[in-house]
Amino acid sequence: MRLLRVGQPGSELPCAVGPDGVVRDVSGWVDDWAGDNLDPEAIGILTRKVEQEAHLLPAVDLSGRRIGPPVRPQQIISIGLNYRRHAAEVGMAVPEEPIVSTKACNALAGPYDDLLIPPGALKTDWEVELGVVIGRRVQYLASPAEANQYIAGYCTANDISERSWLLERGGQWFKGKSFPSFAPLGPYLVTADEIRDPNALQLTCRVNGQLMQDDNTGDMVFDVAELVHYLSRFMVLEPGDVILTGSPGGMAISRPDKPYLRPGDIVETEIAGLGAQRQHCRQPR
Amino acid sequence: MRLLRVGQPGSELPCAVGPDGVVRDVSGWVDDWAGDNLDPEAIGILTRKVEQEAHLLPAVDLSGRRIGPPVRPQQIISIGLNYRRHAAEVGMAVPEEPIVSTKACNALAGPYDDLLIPPGALKTDWEVELGVVIGRRVQYLASPAEANQYIAGYCTANDISERSWLLERGGQWFKGKSFPSFAPLGPYLVTADEIRDPNALQLTCRVNGQLMQDDNTGDMVFDVAELVHYLSRFMVLEPGDVILTGSPGGMAISRPDKPYLRPGDIVETEIAGLGAQRQHCRQPR
Repeated sequence: MRLLRVGQPGSELPCAVGPDGVVRDVSGWVDDWAGDNLDPEAIGILTRKVEQEAHLLPAVDLSGRRIGPPVRPQQIISIGLNYRRHAAEVGMAVPEEPIVSTKACNALAGPYDDLLIPPGALKTDWEVELGVVIGRRVQYLASPAEANQYIAGYCTANDISERSWLLERGGQWFKGKSFPSFAPLGPYLVTADEIRDPNALQLTCRVNGQLMQDDNTGDMVFDVAELVHYLSRFMVLEPGDVILTGSPGGMAISRPDKPYLRPGDIVETEIAGLGAQRQHCRQPR
Repeated sequence: MRLLRVGQPGSELPCAVGPDGVVRDVSGWVDDWAGDNLDPEAIGILTRKVEQEAHLLPAVDLSGRRIGPPVRPQQIISIGLNYRRHAAEVGMAVPEEPIVSTKACNALAGPYDDLLIPPGALKTDWEVELGVVIGRRVQYLASPAEANQYIAGYCTANDISERSWLLERGGQWFKGKSFPSFAPLGPYLVTADEIRDPNALQLTCRVNGQLMQDDNTGDMVFDVAELVHYLSRFMVLEPGDVILTGSPGGMAISRPDKPYLRPGDIVETEIAGLGAQRQHCRQPR
């Protein structure tokens, strides 16, 4: 099932796409896509209910309405240098363990919200990434093989970074990844049962129509289950938490002409089966 | 005023210490120490109300009751290498800009909760730190001089780190700082009006009674106002967010005998005017 949240920031309604392809308001059944509602078992029950009783749910006309991020994570984890071809492209060794940093949670944005280029920022960069949404609290997972039962689903994500704050301001990456609007998620949380293999998804990013990133999650150094297992060893992941699994090559920083984002640019990211995002870059008002 | 939260994790009641020194339950007036209730203006109004009407509030007997963290931050920011004497002690240059990393928010703990030594962890270390609690949403602060109006107050904190995960698992520090119970805060949020100068507070840490850290926030490289200003340039700070302002020297890692924490150890941190913490180290059950 595809889950989404529709409405203005802070007052989004939980919705689901029914078997007829119509977006339905499920706020009569669930308060939000959060907490226990993201448990894979709860999602299974709800999926059957929507399939059988979709006609009881109000249809939602999306025209003119904002689509928000499909979840409100308490933690946004960002994995670095997780694509083999990208590591080779920039001449870096493939990491022996996942490189983990974080984004401020209030960098969260909907998939079509404007991307705010920070004042004075000259190195704002795109990174299409597979987002993994945790569905059940997990700590000290015994092995990657058990990870699946803790995953609610997947979403398209753009792990926007301001490279000057990321690389030129002291060693930790959080600074460059935490500006408002730097974590657009969605449009959908596609539940895990619909994705046969999250490690075989094509993902692309276009800027002003030009194809900049085009790769497959099969090239990831650490796959989805390995990442969930690894993170669970030093932190507790909670329902709604999002793991951004790393970017393939083709970002502005790895191109000779360094075409960083400027106000007016259009960024479009897409992951096969998870939906497409589109951000219009502008200065904050 | 000293604010605190009393009760089991997730169901703490907001309390305040009245002018008579009695802890009072203020849950009839505020739902929690969060959001707009942390605005310095709201705190001022509430302080006057408590001073005048404390007798109307139920007294809270703390005996046998848990004191929780005084706030529930959405972000816990951790500043690195922010004490001059400590930088000199470990032979490192004083940073030119604040070194910023984060802790998982669910590492949060009350000031007397057990400190859980992670399975297999051999390098768990203490760091007494001044915690700054944000009281009002802040972004793009024009100068450090304006920082005060965005600060709700201060608390004692222990920025526990597992050094092997911090330093031996790839470059970002988040891994070593995010285990459950690694962010004990409190007992009190002491409101900013009660602290004449946050940059002149004595802070100590004792382990099994032995004085390990003993320094003054006056030795910080970047003071409180500079840190709030700096962070506001690349992220939005929200009410309840906590900035851990860095640790003075004397941690286990900087001692010749590397006396890292073991189950059974007792860690006691204290900041003058903000109160004392005490953690009993044990293995997770």
